[in-house]
Amino acid sequence: MDKTEGVIFKERDEMKVAVFMILLREVEERLEVLLQERQNTGYKDGLFDFSASGHLKIGESYKQCAVREAAEELGVTIKEEDADFAFLGQGVEEGYVRIFFITTVWEGEPRIMEPEKCAKLEWFSVDELPEDMIENYRKVLEEILRGENFGPF
Amino acid sequence: MDKTEGVIFKERDEMKVAVFMILLREVEERLEVLLQERQNTGYKDGLFDFSASGHLKIGESYKQCAVREAAEELGVTIKEEDADFAFLGQGVEEGYVRIFFITTVWEGEPRIMEPEKCAKLEWFSVDELPEDMIENYRKVLEEILRGENFGPF
Repeated sequence: MDKTEGVIFKERDEMKVAVFMILLREVEERLEVLLQERQNTGYKDGLFDFSASGHLKIGESYKQCAVREAAEELGVTIKEEDADFAFLGQGVEEGYVRIFFITTVWEGEPRIMEPEKCAKLEWFSVDELPEDMIENYRKVLEEILRGENFGPF
Repeated sequence: MDKTEGVIFKERDEMKVAVFMILLREVEERLEVLLQERQNTGYKDGLFDFSASGHLKIGESYKQCAVREAAEELGVTIKEEDADFAFLGQGVEEGYVRIFFITTVWEGEPRIMEPEKCAKLEWFSVDELPEDMIENYRKVLEEILRGENFGPF
């Protein structure tokens, strides 16, 4: 008997997966986060975004993606074992899965590697985030610092 | 000036998102999990899968999806606030995001609502999972019980 007999084939909705690497450092007992100001991307340009981010490719693990984006955008080398899963978010209307990693360990000095897409790269105290930060990502960072790992952002 | 000038448009890979609702109960201080044996689905048929699962639809939150699948497959009503995010997994080769929720609270007695896709529905002690359980999901449950929330399964 054909083993596929009776199998129900269905079309499935597909989503884009955005993966974020958030660089954190401690300076004189103050926790700081590295943010980049977006430009020319067509999404939230002029606002501060997390340190590095991009789209997951088929065949790539979430962590491989986060590490790759940090290398491409910031010129830093991050070991997969130094990146920790921090938060699962969602852009329901846009059909987006959002996956956030944090790290405090990297090699190299973060710098703007893609100046066409990034206008500024700056460290901010997590207690004094810039006004012009993407609102949902401000919430994500607040949730992470509260110890939460899941939310609708 | 056209605000879209200079914007870089790119094709993005897209993934399917599988969402799982795992029902747990305590019986005489023993923790049990509800598993269903798959049939006629074209994926891992003949093996035990989690209590309920399905594909995320565009416009639906992860939790809405988990609650919907539990209603469709098991005939139980679960409140979103009673479902907790438990684990983020991945099927790298298949291009799958996997999101697992657990719950211990529901209304109604779980029963087979889609007999064409589900051959059996049984409670198992988490210490005595069946041999013929989907291997990656056995690992997911072990990780969840260890307190982990992220892994390559």
